[in-house]
Amino acid sequence: MSFLIKNGTVVGPQGPNAADVLVDGERIVALYAPGTAPDVPDTIDATGKYVIPGGVDAHTHMQMPFGGTQASDTFDTGTRAAAFGGTTTIIDFAIQRTGEVVQDGLAAWHEKTAGNCHVDYGFHMILGGVDDESLKAMDQLVATEGISSFKLFMAYPGVFYSDDGQILRAMQKARDNGAMIMMHAENGPAIDVLVKQALERGETDPYYHGVTRPQELEAEATSRAIWLAEVAADCPLYIVHLSASKALEQVAAARDRGRNVFAETCPQYLYLTLEDQLGAPGFEGAKWVCSTPLRSKHESHQADLWKGLKTNDLAVVSTDHCPFCMKDQKEMGIGDFSKIPNGIGSVEHRVDLLYQGVVDGKLSLGRWVETIATTPARMFGMYPKKGVIAPGSDADIVLYDPAGRTRISVDTHHMNMDYSAWEGWEIAGKVDTVISRGSVIVQNGEYKGHAGHGKYVPRGLSEYLV
Amino acid sequence: MSFLIKNGTVVGPQGPNAADVLVDGERIVALYAPGTAPDVPDTIDATGKYVIPGGVDAHTHMQMPFGGTQASDTFDTGTRAAAFGGTTTIIDFAIQRTGEVVQDGLAAWHEKTAGNCHVDYGFHMILGGVDDESLKAMDQLVATEGISSFKLFMAYPGVFYSDDGQILRAMQKARDNGAMIMMHAENGPAIDVLVKQALERGETDPYYHGVTRPQELEAEATSRAIWLAEVAADCPLYIVHLSASKALEQVAAARDRGRNVFAETCPQYLYLTLEDQLGAPGFEGAKWVCSTPLRSKHESHQADLWKGLKTNDLAVVSTDHCPFCMKDQKEMGIGDFSKIPNGIGSVEHRVDLLYQGVVDGKLSLGRWVETIATTPARMFGMYPKKGVIAPGSDADIVLYDPAGRTRISVDTHHMNMDYSAWEGWEIAGKVDTVISRGSVIVQNGEYKGHAGHGKYVPRGLSEYLV
Amino acid sequence: MSFLIKNGTVVGPQGPNAADVLVDGERIVALYAPGTAPDVPDTIDATGKYVIPGGVDAHTHMQMPFGGTQASDTFDTGTRAAAFGGTTTIIDFAIQRTGEVVQDGLAAWHEKTAGNCHVDYGFHMILGGVDDESLKAMDQLVATEGISSFKLFMAYPGVFYSDDGQILRAMQKARDNGAMIMMHAENGPAIDVLVKQALERGETDPYYHGVTRPQELEAEATSRAIWLAEVAADCPLYIVHLSASKALEQVAAARDRGRNVFAETCPQYLYLTLEDQLGAPGFEGAKWVCSTPLRSKHESHQADLWKGLKTNDLAVVSTDHCPFCMKDQKEMGIGDFSKIPNGIGSVEHRVDLLYQGVVDGKLSLGRWVETIATTPARMFGMYPKKGVIAPGSDADIVLYDPAGRTRISVDTHHMNMDYSAWEGWEIAGKVDTVISRGSVIVQNGEYKGHAGHGKYVPRGLSEYLV
Amino acid sequence: MSFLIKNGTVVGPQGPNAADVLVDGERIVALYAPGTAPDVPDTIDATGKYVIPGGVDAHTHMQMPFGGTQASDTFDTGTRAAAFGGTTTIIDFAIQRTGEVVQDGLAAWHEKTAGNCHVDYGFHMILGGVDDESLKAMDQLVATEGISSFKLFMAYPGVFYSDDGQILRAMQKARDNGAMIMMHAENGPAIDVLVKQALERGETDPYYHGVTRPQELEAEATSRAIWLAEVAADCPLYIVHLSASKALEQVAAARDRGRNVFAETCPQYLYLTLEDQLGAPGFEGAKWVCSTPLRSKHESHQADLWKGLKTNDLAVVSTDHCPFCMKDQKEMGIGDFSKIPNGIGSVEHRVDLLYQGVVDGKLSLGRWVETIATTPARMFGMYPKKGVIAPGSDADIVLYDPAGRTRISVDTHHMNMDYSAWEGWEIAGKVDTVISRGSVIVQNGEYKGHAGHGKYVPRGLSEYLV
Repeated sequence: MSFLIKNGTVVGPQGPNAADVLVDGERIVALYAPGTAPDVPDTIDATGKYVIPGGVDAHTHMQMPFGGTQASDTFDTGTRAAAFGGTTTIIDFAIQRTGEVVQDGLAAWHEKTAGNCHVDYGFHMILGGVDDESLKAMDQLVATEGISSFKLFMAYPGVFYSDDGQILRAMQKARDNGAMIMMHAENGPAIDVLVKQALERGETDPYYHGVTRPQELEAEATSRAIWLAEVAADCPLYIVHLSASKALEQVAAARDRGRNVFAETCPQYLYLTLEDQLGAPGFEGAKWVCSTPLRSKHESHQADLWKGLKTNDLAVVSTDHCPFCMKDQKEMGIGDFSKIPNGIGSVEHRVDLLYQGVVDGKLSLGRWVETIATTPARMFGMYPKKGVIAPGSDADIVLYDPAGRTRISVDTHHMNMDYSAWEGWEIAGKVDTVISRGSVIVQNGEYKGHAGHGKYVPRGLSEYLV
Repeated sequence: MSFLIKNGTVVGPQGPNAADVLVDGERIVALYAPGTAPDVPDTIDATGKYVIPGGVDAHTHMQMPFGGTQASDTFDTGTRAAAFGGTTTIIDFAIQRTGEVVQDGLAAWHEKTAGNCHVDYGFHMILGGVDDESLKAMDQLVATEGISSFKLFMAYPGVFYSDDGQILRAMQKARDNGAMIMMHAENGPAIDVLVKQALERGETDPYYHGVTRPQELEAEATSRAIWLAEVAADCPLYIVHLSASKALEQVAAARDRGRNVFAETCPQYLYLTLEDQLGAPGFEGAKWVCSTPLRSKHESHQADLWKGLKTNDLAVVSTDHCPFCMKDQKEMGIGDFSKIPNGIGSVEHRVDLLYQGVVDGKLSLGRWVETIATTPARMFGMYPKKGVIAPGSDADIVLYDPAGRTRISVDTHHMNMDYSAWEGWEIAGKVDTVISRGSVIVQNGEYKGHAGHGKYVPRGLSEYLV
Repeated sequence: MSFLIKNGTVVGPQGPNAADVLVDGERIVALYAPGTAPDVPDTIDATGKYVIPGGVDAHTHMQMPFGGTQASDTFDTGTRAAAFGGTTTIIDFAIQRTGEVVQDGLAAWHEKTAGNCHVDYGFHMILGGVDDESLKAMDQLVATEGISSFKLFMAYPGVFYSDDGQILRAMQKARDNGAMIMMHAENGPAIDVLVKQALERGETDPYYHGVTRPQELEAEATSRAIWLAEVAADCPLYIVHLSASKALEQVAAARDRGRNVFAETCPQYLYLTLEDQLGAPGFEGAKWVCSTPLRSKHESHQADLWKGLKTNDLAVVSTDHCPFCMKDQKEMGIGDFSKIPNGIGSVEHRVDLLYQGVVDGKLSLGRWVETIATTPARMFGMYPKKGVIAPGSDADIVLYDPAGRTRISVDTHHMNMDYSAWEGWEIAGKVDTVISRGSVIVQNGEYKGHAGHGKYVPRGLSEYLV
Repeated sequence: MSFLIKNGTVVGPQGPNAADVLVDGERIVALYAPGTAPDVPDTIDATGKYVIPGGVDAHTHMQMPFGGTQASDTFDTGTRAAAFGGTTTIIDFAIQRTGEVVQDGLAAWHEKTAGNCHVDYGFHMILGGVDDESLKAMDQLVATEGISSFKLFMAYPGVFYSDDGQILRAMQKARDNGAMIMMHAENGPAIDVLVKQALERGETDPYYHGVTRPQELEAEATSRAIWLAEVAADCPLYIVHLSASKALEQVAAARDRGRNVFAETCPQYLYLTLEDQLGAPGFEGAKWVCSTPLRSKHESHQADLWKGLKTNDLAVVSTDHCPFCMKDQKEMGIGDFSKIPNGIGSVEHRVDLLYQGVVDGKLSLGRWVETIATTPARMFGMYPKKGVIAPGSDADIVLYDPAGRTRISVDTHHMNMDYSAWEGWEIAGKVDTVISRGSVIVQNGEYKGHAGHGKYVPRGLSEYLV
């Protein structure tokens, strides 16, 4: 099937440009200057719309197992919600825990996803147990499985935690095979002390989740990861869910030295705060318990993060989508914030929430597209298949209506959550039409896709280096 | 006339992508995925070639008057040489001197260029005398003349020098009308003291041109310009010909703070040094007398500048092309380095010299194209007309042969100079074919263009902000 | 005459130590461990008191000519007020204006002071016209006149202003003869633009004096002075009346690089603000018009300055004592803040105001003494004659009563001013007894000294380097 | 017994001052201006000599148990050698290992020292096992045992290593009870990986001890300790044996922020290098195996450390005296550098080696005395009893002869080592006479002291804060 997207404004990292886009089968086959395209029977009129590459959310945790429960979005519900929000590719995290075989973890994730996804997907691999075995597995995953990024944790001792020796070894391996090391950068052993002390003082509300994870411990871990990457011959390093000014300073300083250090932030850190959300009365703050935590509005975090998006010290906006319902899930932590499942669900709202930054004058149009689609695709080895409107690329296309408005509510969202972290937010701009590999899957607010349409995308090495 | 560039690899800032490019008249009208383009009678086979946007050299001084003589390249010879080197747009500097009327200076430059240029051109305006009159002229040039950038000098007291009060006023005006302030950032009054002292000590050789312009005085002026721009409500600022590590540190720090501060460097600072070139025996060093000067090889300038190109703290590579012959021109400074006309001619070699950075692993392919074409076009309001291979853009296209080799010599170059600053340099890569607004002007080393083909390009505001 | 100060706690830079102090004639001749001193007929009981070196105020402008008037304290009234406040040495600024002979300026100051001073005094020399002549004079003043510090101005074009070439030359000279360059670091040409614009907008109140001297223009000039000192082979540099966070950052960075860069601040910057004082209703703000100006309370200046005193990035607290009465003097600027004589009078209150920092936990006892007495003496070549309680030193001694209280008011102060910049302030601690070269000049609030007691102190080179 | 030290130049932190010093019993009782002292029967003529406070070496490890052997100097031999070198107080490290009772460790050290020391001594406490028990012990040691500083290790997992949670808890405790946390700042887990890899590659020579402890891992740990101290409400922190430029940058940055962060370096880092000493042919490099290791001469470490001493970012010079003989001890590591006992012996040479810095123009006289005596005494709560020539202070006095020369050799030193780390070094300046609590213990190169003279010095809290 072939169709032409006419009269739209194509937006790429360098900004807007009027062009018509011809899709044939699953790919974009041609771009035309206005008025020069051949007549084709099927057209989509994009007058007044931005024609952007489908969003790439490089950080999701669908149906992630957690303390006897699991994240409330399945790959089915979660990727469908992503589609509604203009995201046509996700990269989820397959998990190896200590003592497990890396390849088994990967196989488990292939099993969960097969036939269930509405949009394309790839995997990062979480290494919860760095040892000789898993280091060997890294090579194999890079070489034959399309996995080119590995996540380590400096937090959660006893669960995912790697000590600095393990981190160094994984980084050396990544340096050799070209993979990217992704880092959850929080000093877990120190945080655990603060958490224990807070609980002993009777500070059990969700608010204390934030207080016991001070930004200094994110900055410290970020700094340490950078030093270790430097010892590992400048292994490429990607800091996930960066939330704090002082952590950003570490990344900026490393980048000034020319290091291959990158970072993502998430919409929650750009808009929500320790006091207003996490500190909501009673147990309501549990809705926003995630790690790294929301930061204080009395400090300059949000202004600094927006600045970081502009300076490219923050290269990517992902969601860290990891939804849990209040009922039965978040509630596990009533009376003890440390038992609240960590996570916020935003996979459906990322493209819109960042477009608000354009409206607010904080991001250029080009930079919007770059941070939500182009850079994540390049960063994680999916470019130019994903992340760009170019001949030969997958026809993952979003028509975005700057004149529309989006109102967020649990009543209307498509994620499997019994609340919205963004309840009542109204945003200028609206996802109009979503095309995944040549198929229109969302149009006029109607869903036309289906589970199983989404395919696994084996990834190459990062395009973002040097 | 219409033709298809087939089988090539189109390179943009995000990297390479296989695509065919259809040119119709003066514009690119379509891009096709390989194998999907319609049959057209005229084709250019780009197999094995990079298809890149024509180079944009944002800093040239053709036939610039200087002390009774003038830069040795006319707009005719200079733009023809540019074409040979894959540069299809230049931005030259029209000049207002103290006491002159700004519009008269602009008119003079239009007169010099009219009918004489081989490739397209725009103008920056040098303000040598900031006062009520010239501030008003800034508004007019932005509004109706297609001039959106104004250059000031912190050096050359009595010639182009503006004091800090004048600079501040021009920056305030630029902030209001959206123009970019370009800055020659060297502390002239202090340098003049050092020059006088050196000459009194009998240090008259070209080498002392470098010694009397220490990097601290470039860093200082760079820092000062940044502070003044901050006082002028964050007026956008572009530092020209940045040459030194400590100056780069100032720019990087400002950018980390989110400031609209940009900088260019030039090939000479990336490859040549105080000791090896400027310090050549006898008067030979005069060939490389330019300001800012070449820097010491015993410091880390070149490594830092390459790093800056990677981190985007250096956004653009221009030439500061301002050629003078040794005979009669440079020779004016025998016995007194301060009388040597300042300038190096490289307009023909910029694209090649930077490609060498790709070969050496210092720049990615995408970053090469970005720094020599895309960013200068965006920075100075010519995008997407210039700087990109996209439907609707001007068909300014270079086929670049990575398998070719380029050898530089006065015997073969096309600039009107009696020496080459790069004599004997041999570089991997070669300009194969050059197309300017749809016309092939260089092919197989033959020149097919003509004076007068190049047209004035009125420019809009910078696309590079926020 | 000989007497013993008994039972007190001697405080020096390293902190308190119980000791008895024997004075003989004009000098301290011995220090004894408690209980070991010989019996002497005359004793002063210092039980419960701190015995500290007399304060050294390194920055005063007694009877300084200004626009047809002069600072309201003569050397007589001013040094008597200093004595009341525990300051037993001042360093005032002799002035050379453009076109004047340096030595004439110095002679004029000797004439003003001779026979009029109540405490000892030295001179810095202001160079308002750096040229061959005045550079030669610098050598002579260092060699034979006991003047080892020279002040330049980056502000006040047409009055005291030196351009960067002049500054560089003076710094080179200082580097050679060992003198210290003191710098008024504000970018005058840029400030003058802002002042003119403000007045044109009708912003004539004292408040706008502060607004038109933004901290960026202090930071810029501070940074520039540091760069120029670096070019002058690391000439020692002392920044006067540093008031702003960003300026302090420049000093701290230079000191981290090991540079001989020093700075003083003044009590007004530690306690008073743009909004609360300079922004007082009507014309009252004129009381606090000084340059550099008071800074905004909405920024972190005061916390940063206190921190700087702790880190030694601020080495000295001086007053910049330059009093003008409201009547007839400050009033000259009604309707035009730029005509208000610049200056605040605090010579009487410096020791007390800084002791308040000890009470507030911001300074240690030792650091209090160091910043108000020991370091200024060492910085300006008067140590160990001044600034220390040591055998052989001048018997300039203050008994300070930590149990006392000091209330500041125009009704009780001894400065020749018709208002107090500190009206109504009440401070813990009190000057109890003041001894100048062995003579008790203040005791029980009574004045026992006399004009003419104070002598000129020829100074050597700074002890504060390397 | 009472005697007068006549005609000398007393040197304190603020510099030299002519004064006579009267000693009575164990204390200094009076200081006199030259020519004013009473006649006393016993005098020591100090003409031409500096009279300085006896050196305080705040970091020694006498007879420290290590892998079945122990450091080769006993408290008897080590403190006698210290005395010869002008050091009259040492602070040694009592040790608690994991599972041991803190108080037992302290008792063991009291047993080793009792009756054996030639000069006064105090103890820091090494905490090798932070837990509820040992945290309680900290309070007790501060309150009743005169121990106010506790050392933790970020290296040596399984031996002394504390994880970040333990470090944080100890810091919180120190914050509350006023103690100082001392930190061995190297990332042990990462170093252990590098060591293992090096040994597997057959890199077994002493040189690889340095290579496997890159400065990045010292800088990282230093940075981490600073962050953790910040989380612990700005607990005071003292970095031991800082050796590397990048670690120094961390300290300097923290101090610029006003943090109570301090650091010491040791003579070996100021003079010796990775290549010249550790890289000596064969196994000879073992002589200089210590941790942190000697650093590369191709980097700027030594210049930076001297600069740090000047800027006070390095506050103290200690020795980390921990001698092992080559025979039987260092030889344990033939074929495996990781088995070489870590340590260098310099307790006898610190005062001389630093005086060489004065001769070389790198330190002022005052700063020499401050870093080797006054600051360590203040830093560790022994001031003004130790570290100063003042009435009431212990009569720990060194007459230092600037006209003398000191030649270092195993043949002449008094430490119990079969080699000297400084063999053949010749230094300007010489320890002439050493007085400990009023007793002359070294004179004319002869030893007049005796074991048991030295007494335990219970220490108060640091005087060096705020």
